[in-house]
Amino acid sequence: MRKNILVIPGDGIGPEVTTWGKAALEKIAEIFGHDFIFDEALMGHAAIEVTGNPLPDETLEKARNSDAILFGAIGHAKYDNDPSLKVRPEQGLLKIRKDLGLFANLRPILLFDELLEASSIKPEILRGTDILFFRELTGDVYFGEKFRSEDRNTASDLMIYHRYEVERIAHKAYQAAQKRNKRLCSVDKANVLESSRLWRETVQEIAKQYPDVETEHMFIDNAAMQLIKNPKKFDVVLTANLFGDILTDEASQIAGSMGMLASASVGESTGFFEPIHGSAHDIAGKNLANPLASILSAALMLEIGFGLKEEAKLLVDTINEVLKEGFRTNDIADQNTERYKVLGTTEMGALVLKFLSQKS
Amino acid sequence: MRKNILVIPGDGIGPEVTTWGKAALEKIAEIFGHDFIFDEALMGHAAIEVTGNPLPDETLEKARNSDAILFGAIGHAKYDNDPSLKVRPEQGLLKIRKDLGLFANLRPILLFDELLEASSIKPEILRGTDILFFRELTGDVYFGEKFRSEDRNTASDLMIYHRYEVERIAHKAYQAAQKRNKRLCSVDKANVLESSRLWRETVQEIAKQYPDVETEHMFIDNAAMQLIKNPKKFDVVLTANLFGDILTDEASQIAGSMGMLASASVGESTGFFEPIHGSAHDIAGKNLANPLASILSAALMLEIGFGLKEEAKLLVDTINEVLKEGFRTNDIADQNTERYKVLGTTEMGALVLKFLSQKS
Ligand SMILES: CC(C)[C@H](C(=O)O)[C@@H](O)C(=O)O
Ligand SMILES: CC(C)[C@H](C(=O)O)[C@@H](O)C(=O)O
Repeated sequence: MRKNILVIPGDGIGPEVTTWGKAALEKIAEIFGHDFIFDEALMGHAAIEVTGNPLPDETLEKARNSDAILFGAIGHAKYDNDPSLKVRPEQGLLKIRKDLGLFANLRPILLFDELLEASSIKPEILRGTDILFFRELTGDVYFGEKFRSEDRNTASDLMIYHRYEVERIAHKAYQAAQKRNKRLCSVDKANVLESSRLWRETVQEIAKQYPDVETEHMFIDNAAMQLIKNPKKFDVVLTANLFGDILTDEASQIAGSMGMLASASVGESTGFFEPIHGSAHDIAGKNLANPLASILSAALMLEIGFGLKEEAKLLVDTINEVLKEGFRTNDIADQNTERYKVLGTTEMGALVLKFLSQKS
Repeated sequence: MRKNILVIPGDGIGPEVTTWGKAALEKIAEIFGHDFIFDEALMGHAAIEVTGNPLPDETLEKARNSDAILFGAIGHAKYDNDPSLKVRPEQGLLKIRKDLGLFANLRPILLFDELLEASSIKPEILRGTDILFFRELTGDVYFGEKFRSEDRNTASDLMIYHRYEVERIAHKAYQAAQKRNKRLCSVDKANVLESSRLWRETVQEIAKQYPDVETEHMFIDNAAMQLIKNPKKFDVVLTANLFGDILTDEASQIAGSMGMLASASVGESTGFFEPIHGSAHDIAGKNLANPLASILSAALMLEIGFGLKEEAKLLVDTINEVLKEGFRTNDIADQNTERYKVLGTTEMGALVLKFLSQKS
């Protein structure tokens, strides 16, 4: 198979981890005889530094012409500390999501048995958890009109949804639920928000077309609680952009660490694959970041982007093996024990490649 | 001390649990020789049924004339299942918050040692946690303009903040932090939302007036994760209405159960005290609800509303004792063991009163 892959390392720990996602794809291409052609582009703070623009035209152009995108992370402390800056790294990520029509963000909560103890949640609560989040990605308060009064004393963002936006992601989520455990939980705040009432109404309508799937509606506050209390009760979770942002980060504690979670954004054409973690400036450049989420993003690209199930499985199995052998990055090592071999970013990435090589 | 207390039982399990919050106040009055005069009023579905209005004028009038309000819960399945209904129970709660100027919602995460094991989170992660949330309560997307297009296909809610709204709650939160561990974490989504940028800017300004308090700014997605990963790192958490709604429900898992958390809403005049749990229609009327959050709401009324520290402490200590003796309601009983004496709502409420009587 021949594919054009665009790599966008981004900011903070983005470049360090994306190196290994890309390397894993190269190794897979070698093992299975695929032809993956790589290009690279700038986004975020990295792009502002060079071009003044968080999403340069050239990046968007390259993105449009690629079959899939492997992305790292975005954001920089400078902007976080100065809310008044007008040009901001995150605008690049939001714009590429919108321009490529990436309306569905899939975030599987993949639980490695070996990491059950790395979580702050009790293993007996976690065991057996398998959740697939569908987060809407191109609507909501993220893209509604922003306003700041001239005296700077009033600010607003419009939380807005159109019925078709809810419909198209609901269909995707229901179709996924049909292939899984046939349960779908739609999360909103319909007791307060009009946009959530539209969300709930629309999901209720779409649900009728999938009578084999059991639908539940839950308020976001309750969902944030249930996710920790009893994660096993969830199968597919369907939710809006902002609520999905919050719930999936929270759910990273189920997987033991944010450093283990990947996401796939799909929609109209090119798929976009990225770790769910952020740019983590505090550990950037220190060889401390966990490269496994980027490698798992590569696995999602293989499976969801290219339909290469066997290849994706090989990556996931290899990571499992590495963990079984007791290798950990800092974020997933249980601090209280001496039983793990704790590796840096480079060492962990290289080890996964070595294990992969031994399989070919 | 002479005080007029308005009891608003509300919907679902509201009446069952509020009975015990009120009874606890009566017992405290008896023990300490106070004069608490009670009145009762309707709100929510209960009020719609009788008057067609979720917040009848009479209730608002009584509320204005009371020194404190003890509230139960709000909401009904009928409205949750039918997003198109125009008159909704929750409107009553939102309107009373707004009309009484209850802009600061204090939610202490009180950790009973005895309940460390009732949580889904590991006891060693929880031990020592002590968080006080300040949730803004009369602004945000809760009160911004709502819109539904004529064809019903577009819906929106305006997420909006004014600087003074952020300032007044920030002052309250900083003042509380000064009396606690001198750390304040302000939670927003300033990397995406303009209203959050105003929030962050304003908190940065106010922070300068409290140089003895250490300020941290955190994005809501990260906060939802950190709260589970390392709850001990938080002291005072300051956040907007919507984010506070989500985070405090999530934090209920720290306390073992939502059935153990109370909140105080304060602002311009009369204080409003309520459990953070909802109306829980599924268990309403079954003698299954936990009355302790209502009794703890009464304790907050004594402490925050009336400045009666000793009285409040007696209630909390008594609950501690009841738990130490192995008594539990269903929600806080560890399902896997036989070691607890599991009680219904009435039995638990009566037991707390009995323990209280023995102290007087
Ligand atoms: C960086 C930020 C804009 C982004 C978001 O909020 O969508 C991130 O948190 C994510 O979840 O991908
Ligand atoms: C019932 C609902 C309107 C309310 C809210 O969202 O504020 C509740 O969840 C709460 O937290 O008090």
